[in-house]
Amino acid sequence: MTGLPIAVSIGDPAGIGPEVLAKAWVKRREQKLPPFFAIGDVRSISTVWKGPLRKIGEPSEAIGCFDEALPIMEVEDAGEIVPGKPNMPGARCAIASLEIAVGIVRENAASAIVTGPVSKAELYAIGFSHSGQTEFVAERCGVSPGNVAMMLAGPTLKTVCITTHVPLASVSALLTVELVVARARVTARGLQRDFGIEAPRIAMAGFNPHAGEGGALGREEIEILLPAIEQLRDEGIDIVGPLAADTMFHPRARAHYDVALCTYHDQALIPLKTLHFDDGVNMTLGLPIVRTAPDHGTAFEIAGQGLAEPGATIAAIRMAGEAAGRRAAAL
Amino acid sequence: MTGLPIAVSIGDPAGIGPEVLAKAWVKRREQKLPPFFAIGDVRSISTVWKGPLRKIGEPSEAIGCFDEALPIMEVEDAGEIVPGKPNMPGARCAIASLEIAVGIVRENAASAIVTGPVSKAELYAIGFSHSGQTEFVAERCGVSPGNVAMMLAGPTLKTVCITTHVPLASVSALLTVELVVARARVTARGLQRDFGIEAPRIAMAGFNPHAGEGGALGREEIEILLPAIEQLRDEGIDIVGPLAADTMFHPRARAHYDVALCTYHDQALIPLKTLHFDDGVNMTLGLPIVRTAPDHGTAFEIAGQGLAEPGATIAAIRMAGEAAGRRAAAL
Repeated sequence: MTGLPIAVSIGDPAGIGPEVLAKAWVKRREQKLPPFFAIGDVRSISTVWKGPLRKIGEPSEAIGCFDEALPIMEVEDAGEIVPGKPNMPGARCAIASLEIAVGIVRENAASAIVTGPVSKAELYAIGFSHSGQTEFVAERCGVSPGNVAMMLAGPTLKTVCITTHVPLASVSALLTVELVVARARVTARGLQRDFGIEAPRIAMAGFNPHAGEGGALGREEIEILLPAIEQLRDEGIDIVGPLAADTMFHPRARAHYDVALCTYHDQALIPLKTLHFDDGVNMTLGLPIVRTAPDHGTAFEIAGQGLAEPGATIAAIRMAGEAAGRRAAAL
Repeated sequence: MTGLPIAVSIGDPAGIGPEVLAKAWVKRREQKLPPFFAIGDVRSISTVWKGPLRKIGEPSEAIGCFDEALPIMEVEDAGEIVPGKPNMPGARCAIASLEIAVGIVRENAASAIVTGPVSKAELYAIGFSHSGQTEFVAERCGVSPGNVAMMLAGPTLKTVCITTHVPLASVSALLTVELVVARARVTARGLQRDFGIEAPRIAMAGFNPHAGEGGALGREEIEILLPAIEQLRDEGIDIVGPLAADTMFHPRARAHYDVALCTYHDQALIPLKTLHFDDGVNMTLGLPIVRTAPDHGTAFEIAGQGLAEPGATIAAIRMAGEAAGRRAAAL
């Protein structure tokens, strides 16, 4: 335990972020969640939930009231809030919430940040110049994008992406020995620091079908992945591969590694969401702060209807609390 | 029922093909399997299994003896057989078995063909010029590779590949409206003919992360997949998409379609093998004959040790029998 609450940015006010956060608070006792508080527009939650909300001015106030009400720190006005109908003031509010939350954690007034889902289309429309919240948080923490890693985690599988939100046809050109090595180092260090796994076992996925079949089906394995693996092993990192990606995610295969290092977005996300659609967590490794997020989007199509499942938010808050606790204990 | 037995080519004599076929025969009653017979070198089975084998000269003899012994039709000598140690005579025997099996089914002496696993490296070494057994069978049936489709099927998911064994970096250039349309047509027709699904619901996977996010993460969806979908709908085919590939394979999403049409090998194979590693079936759609195969390789590393699971072979034989029965009933 850190003694500090967790800061949760609500995300887009018109998405399911407000609803799943309120539902997570309702389950705080049953799920034994650490204290947290929301950052955003109060109306985004009160529009979709009639439970107790408590406005707070300082993060420290969250601890005292968390048991009775969902604490919330207000940021700028999100304009008119209609669930399922995103707009620009809402997008600006989402970014302001994110920025304030990062600042609070950087100042050690909260133990970790959990970020609610935002709409990239809306963010781009207001001039947001990062490819996602991950990159924004990394920049605010002064870490280059090459030195963080996006990890997706569910109860039986963790995957890390070497490349993320880029066209699939450009991945081959983006893969370099340096990038693979950097992501693997961040991954190994992250599993040690945030999950307490002393010697993490990394399984490296091949890029091509059958991991290239000795070069017959592509040469990225031979030219990039194998040299990277060799270098990583020389550094003492426990990494195997490149493995055929299609045969590494069934239960018996998963028993042999702690994390799968994947070459592109869908290689990491397809198995994760196939297995853990409702409780997958997105965690950014390599940051000076702990950051997690539920691994789902704004789901505008069901926002405001009471249908959204809070499982991923609950898992994200729990994972953030555990990681923050481990880091505090290691100090 | 067709009244005809199913022909099973044993595959590489040094792989797990002989063992899983013998184990499938042992479970013939418990699994209510239709009569089948092996094609290959008798010693490939007798080396790893001590149960009853019966050499037959004609496929029709299989029906009478199937209950008491595993019927086998001998082809050319496979040379010295050491489980786990493939060699060129073994590869030649595997291809001869395949060729004879196809011929038998083409002559209506067997109802369907199930092909055991072969080693591509060995096949290429003996000058095999097809990229796999699927392409070989298609050619022997006089069907162009563009007009067949590789379908992977498990109890809760069916996927079809638009491109198969090619380097991932070359997929974007290979995807054309014509190819997508051709594969979708073959898929729809295959589900009608071989599975009795009158109006198959096809879900088209996007190629890029988030299905390209409106073009921001790649344009294959806009330039190729959407025009293909439009054309297919005009033809009366029930197809939706392109969908974000990572969110289309969890249980609730799978309930909305009969088959997922995937743009590349691992997009189809990762979810299938994550969910159905032990009982996935590979079926070739678009052929004048029924052809299935267990969706696993030769597994040389465990061959001859009694460890191989026959689940996929049992499922492949059952699926072949059911499809052949449907085709016979439709005549």
